[in-house]
Amino acid sequence: MDPIRYGMIGGGQGAFIGGVHRTAAAIAGNWRLVAGAFSATPEKARASGREIGVSEDRNYASWQDMLEAEAAHAEGERIEAVSIVTPNHMHAPPAIAAMEAGFDVIIDKPLADSMANARAIAEAAARTGRRIAITHTYTGYPLVKQARSLISNGKFGPVRRVMVKYTQDWLSRAEDLVDNKQAAWRVDPKQSGAAGAFGDIGTHAANLVEFITGERIAEIAAELTMLSGRAIDDDGAALFRLSGGGRGTLTASQVLVGDINDLSIDVYCEQAGLHWRQEEPNTMRIGYRDKPTEIWHAGANRTYLDADILAIQRTPGGHPEGYLEAFANIYRAFGESLRGETSGGGETGFATLEDTLAGMRFLDAALESSRKNAAWVKL
Amino acid sequence: MDPIRYGMIGGGQGAFIGGVHRTAAAIAGNWRLVAGAFSATPEKARASGREIGVSEDRNYASWQDMLEAEAAHAEGERIEAVSIVTPNHMHAPPAIAAMEAGFDVIIDKPLADSMANARAIAEAAARTGRRIAITHTYTGYPLVKQARSLISNGKFGPVRRVMVKYTQDWLSRAEDLVDNKQAAWRVDPKQSGAAGAFGDIGTHAANLVEFITGERIAEIAAELTMLSGRAIDDDGAALFRLSGGGRGTLTASQVLVGDINDLSIDVYCEQAGLHWRQEEPNTMRIGYRDKPTEIWHAGANRTYLDADILAIQRTPGGHPEGYLEAFANIYRAFGESLRGETSGGGETGFATLEDTLAGMRFLDAALESSRKNAAWVKL
Amino acid sequence: MDPIRYGMIGGGQGAFIGGVHRTAAAIAGNWRLVAGAFSATPEKARASGREIGVSEDRNYASWQDMLEAEAAHAEGERIEAVSIVTPNHMHAPPAIAAMEAGFDVIIDKPLADSMANARAIAEAAARTGRRIAITHTYTGYPLVKQARSLISNGKFGPVRRVMVKYTQDWLSRAEDLVDNKQAAWRVDPKQSGAAGAFGDIGTHAANLVEFITGERIAEIAAELTMLSGRAIDDDGAALFRLSGGGRGTLTASQVLVGDINDLSIDVYCEQAGLHWRQEEPNTMRIGYRDKPTEIWHAGANRTYLDADILAIQRTPGGHPEGYLEAFANIYRAFGESLRGETSGGGETGFATLEDTLAGMRFLDAALESSRKNAAWVKL
Amino acid sequence: MDPIRYGMIGGGQGAFIGGVHRTAAAIAGNWRLVAGAFSATPEKARASGREIGVSEDRNYASWQDMLEAEAAHAEGERIEAVSIVTPNHMHAPPAIAAMEAGFDVIIDKPLADSMANARAIAEAAARTGRRIAITHTYTGYPLVKQARSLISNGKFGPVRRVMVKYTQDWLSRAEDLVDNKQAAWRVDPKQSGAAGAFGDIGTHAANLVEFITGERIAEIAAELTMLSGRAIDDDGAALFRLSGGGRGTLTASQVLVGDINDLSIDVYCEQAGLHWRQEEPNTMRIGYRDKPTEIWHAGANRTYLDADILAIQRTPGGHPEGYLEAFANIYRAFGESLRGETSGGGETGFATLEDTLAGMRFLDAALESSRKNAAWVKL
Repeated sequence: MDPIRYGMIGGGQGAFIGGVHRTAAAIAGNWRLVAGAFSATPEKARASGREIGVSEDRNYASWQDMLEAEAAHAEGERIEAVSIVTPNHMHAPPAIAAMEAGFDVIIDKPLADSMANARAIAEAAARTGRRIAITHTYTGYPLVKQARSLISNGKFGPVRRVMVKYTQDWLSRAEDLVDNKQAAWRVDPKQSGAAGAFGDIGTHAANLVEFITGERIAEIAAELTMLSGRAIDDDGAALFRLSGGGRGTLTASQVLVGDINDLSIDVYCEQAGLHWRQEEPNTMRIGYRDKPTEIWHAGANRTYLDADILAIQRTPGGHPEGYLEAFANIYRAFGESLRGETSGGGETGFATLEDTLAGMRFLDAALESSRKNAAWVKL
Repeated sequence: MDPIRYGMIGGGQGAFIGGVHRTAAAIAGNWRLVAGAFSATPEKARASGREIGVSEDRNYASWQDMLEAEAAHAEGERIEAVSIVTPNHMHAPPAIAAMEAGFDVIIDKPLADSMANARAIAEAAARTGRRIAITHTYTGYPLVKQARSLISNGKFGPVRRVMVKYTQDWLSRAEDLVDNKQAAWRVDPKQSGAAGAFGDIGTHAANLVEFITGERIAEIAAELTMLSGRAIDDDGAALFRLSGGGRGTLTASQVLVGDINDLSIDVYCEQAGLHWRQEEPNTMRIGYRDKPTEIWHAGANRTYLDADILAIQRTPGGHPEGYLEAFANIYRAFGESLRGETSGGGETGFATLEDTLAGMRFLDAALESSRKNAAWVKL
Repeated sequence: MDPIRYGMIGGGQGAFIGGVHRTAAAIAGNWRLVAGAFSATPEKARASGREIGVSEDRNYASWQDMLEAEAAHAEGERIEAVSIVTPNHMHAPPAIAAMEAGFDVIIDKPLADSMANARAIAEAAARTGRRIAITHTYTGYPLVKQARSLISNGKFGPVRRVMVKYTQDWLSRAEDLVDNKQAAWRVDPKQSGAAGAFGDIGTHAANLVEFITGERIAEIAAELTMLSGRAIDDDGAALFRLSGGGRGTLTASQVLVGDINDLSIDVYCEQAGLHWRQEEPNTMRIGYRDKPTEIWHAGANRTYLDADILAIQRTPGGHPEGYLEAFANIYRAFGESLRGETSGGGETGFATLEDTLAGMRFLDAALESSRKNAAWVKL
Repeated sequence: MDPIRYGMIGGGQGAFIGGVHRTAAAIAGNWRLVAGAFSATPEKARASGREIGVSEDRNYASWQDMLEAEAAHAEGERIEAVSIVTPNHMHAPPAIAAMEAGFDVIIDKPLADSMANARAIAEAAARTGRRIAITHTYTGYPLVKQARSLISNGKFGPVRRVMVKYTQDWLSRAEDLVDNKQAAWRVDPKQSGAAGAFGDIGTHAANLVEFITGERIAEIAAELTMLSGRAIDDDGAALFRLSGGGRGTLTASQVLVGDINDLSIDVYCEQAGLHWRQEEPNTMRIGYRDKPTEIWHAGANRTYLDADILAIQRTPGGHPEGYLEAFANIYRAFGESLRGETSGGGETGFATLEDTLAGMRFLDAALESSRKNAAWVKL
């Protein structure tokens, strides 16, 4: 298939996630970066574009310039989609403008810094008929898709209890907010929204729960905390209730020393318990009551995996795929979907507006519950 | 040292924990079983005693008989202590009577089936001046003592967050309550107290938190649940706050399929995160932010362990000690303490009344919180 | 059953393995220590016996005294068996004398310091009709027995390849031979035999291979080495060929830094590969080609284990048993066998003369091969 | 930097490794695929090229066509290098011709199907002054480079013993040679050379040993075997001696059931033992005698790693990189080297002719030793 021509908004010098998106698109193979407005600062945008290697005439000083100029290009030449990798508070304006200019959108999660902005994006999508995908990265892992296939299809019976955590330590010290571009916007309510760790990574954890169980988090009792002197949460935990009646706990923190990027989930059903950990993503453990525990392995030739999950893997078992490949799976699936092809990974290839709005409701409910001393709040 | 002569109450045919106590005492080496009243049913008591191998004249039909007859024996001949391994609701009467008859007591946890009975035991101890130890087994593991030494002494800075779980699957099916002696009394409020899983194993988890951190659980918001058709909790989770200001989550369940006896704890301090799992008790993981993760190993020759922890181990590194040895450590420490010797494992050799009453307050607070829809309850 | 009354030879102050035997016998429950000659030095023997707690009149100054005096005791009073835990070169004299005096023998491995002495013991056993068991400890682990059951019964097809290692680091430094009682006799050819690490732990590795596969090592090409300045091997490796046609590698070393007591085995058959590691003895991994890897768990209630393996375990799954319990399984099985009872663990409960002579042939062949620059030597 | 324009030889429909090279080059970011001759069959070459997406005029029917046509293009337009991913016996002709036509070469390992052909390639490189890199993939992993940095620099003292294995199970059944393109050429001596598993993966294992230790394998005693009915080895093991005096064992097999792609290495030095396993490549274990074991983590922000190893990682700790990223590291380093830039990963960025000739000598010696019943053969 012909690759999707895309332009990137944000992701210039000093940014982490922009490079991840570009590499993911390269691995996916069905995307081609042809334009960019890589920073809100024109000089920095242009310098970044030169480094990244887009051609001079499509290396724009602002996203407004890019949308206008690209829309004027001939069909077959102009970009078809934009990838938005700006800080959270800068998601909605370019996303809405891009859709209005006729481009599809792939956007880093969370969709927006507030429910109001998220709804505005959703309305724009409905109004313009453009497509939008949100990169909830961790759902791109093959074994996460396999977990969903097993559990949401009821193979192991109803979900009883979920334990999920997403914990890191990069903000564990007071001084971590000084001179740290990654940290600065994430812990500034104006740029990142009202939530800190719960918004940044707690929503990944919640999304993973909903993706694997096929249920929604219906109710939450959360307590968010922060190190002395900080404005928004850097740590918190919650009890939750699933739409299907199961219970769970969720912990999200950026101050837990020794945890690097520890997203881990345990899902207990009536007949089995399933365990997956992002830092070792190529194995999944399933415990039973009356037979040995199983270790499932990722790999394009592990024939016990579902056919559509085999299809999206690039290497045979034992040749580990990682974070970038998971990310690439999202790009590939969205690209295939834009071309009208059957998407590798089925309908679960990328997160939809509905999925991500659920995440934002989760976040709002967690914040509200925390303000109410961990009282239960319905989503 | 001369072994402690003891008699056992309960623990006859079909019981699990009685055999554990007897083997633990044998491994400890400083206890000698010389008498017993192994069941509430006289014939069964006698048959059990014959199987176990106590001499006919000290194989009693009831604990009342044993206390009376032994008290009448000469000093140097009569038992010095009793080991009580009956169901929870049968702890208080023999414990109090034994102390009144002049014997020290070692008793399986929880101390009693209700706070009232626990207080009655504590009062009897104070009144008679007898000693009492409660077998919170998991604190007997060498690496748990090492964890306490590191954390409660502040080596890693204040505790920020604790995650603890104690999960099993042996009651995961409706039919598990039929014809199962272990299950029957544990899930019968009359025998086990008002709590099920939270009393049986949740208290172990809470005790482990307090033992390692050297703090108390100060406040809890818990939700206890149960499979349809059951009278008391078989599953639940809680948020908690520690006396030192840290936060935590606790899950206790006997219906989580694939989890065998999975007591696991993660304690995050300002400078390090410590991780221990009961099913692989001879290693402990400590994560740091700026240096490699460490794996500490148990073993009588691992010189980086504290001297008093080296002293209680029976085998050099790589010769795994297990559950029975952990249990034996409690017997040995209590025996040494009764003989006035310096206890291996220091002041932490066995749980005291204060420790165990804290556990019972934890349980009462969890039950109250659950009745109040997980509202915070102070302990 | 009535416990086996036994006397111990060796194992006094400063010894490691003697205490292991006594605790193992105590855990087994069907042995009772009633006499001892705990050292070759009379005063030390007596002092050790007082510490250990045998009665004064049966605390002997020499093993000769013990055999003579005990033989004179009444049946039903005198010892029935001796446990021999002396250095290797002191195995044969007391073992032969004990059998001639009418006692059965349990003896630490290796059976003797030379093939000649081993044969002399075997002849004495044949001549006197006494029973003898050798404590090849690692075959006492429940999952090792389960591995044997699966593989030697052919469930997974013929054995293709075995990898086994037994590696430690306690002799990794030149100075480790100074003032170290454990080391001193083990590395002195006069006390330990002509082999060092290969005799001390290599034979355990070879025994484990033969136990699990149910085959014999038929041929070996070995290279034994040692740190500069040492008299006998402290490190070595071998290729070997099994009687059934499979191939293997074996490494035994006491100078490999960071390996504590790392006995690990991988057995690959036509249909599955089985993996077990002594330091985490309660799980066993089985890999297949077309289905998920399995983790088998030890435990008295893991119903997928064989019935006779369930029967020898003391605790349910997740309550780890360790090295002392594995050792206890050997004592228990030999005790039951002496009483004519069906032995827990079936015919594999303890190593027989035939098993241990195979180990000595292995050692002789390894030494010969090493002298011949790793040429193949048949056993 | 301007990307290296390259053409690919081989790697068309049905091939595995060609796609790996292309994705690796895309991840590397400093290579651009502009031409190709993707099969020895012209129609298949052209069909593959269309699928892969090279432009029609540079999608060649044969590698001879490609070299001729590209050499005729203007500088700045024509390819600068070729990537050769054909079966082993088809390495030498295009590699030599490409260098003679003025192109640098990156080539899948092993360099050639025979020592004679390997030498011919080396001579062509010397004659033409062209550069050549061989993709010994596993040296591309960041922690493998870190292991080399620690060990070859002597930080842990001399190497005592190495255990290395590379084991798979995809040829474990007789029928695996039927209708399997991957298998067919690998087990056909005419296409793959005289060696099977030892050539295909044993050389990876040997290369890893030499890369990490900084020494050469000096002598080997090997036994290669195969399933009944096969023409070349599918399984084997060896003792070896390192140039620095250390000893080792090496196992390579494609018939060991349950092992997926299990390349694992243990390197024991005087002061520490280092352990790495390709299937979980983002952690490395280092054991010591007197302090806790360490787990080192990969990641662009794990500051205890060497600066040049931090520099080549694309993601922070806990965002796992895998096989494709390791492969990309080789492409990137070779590309940087071609541009005269300091190569990320230092002088170890890619395997040189010297490294790979050592691997071929290893293979020849292993084959010779096996023919001589595992007699020692010097390399």
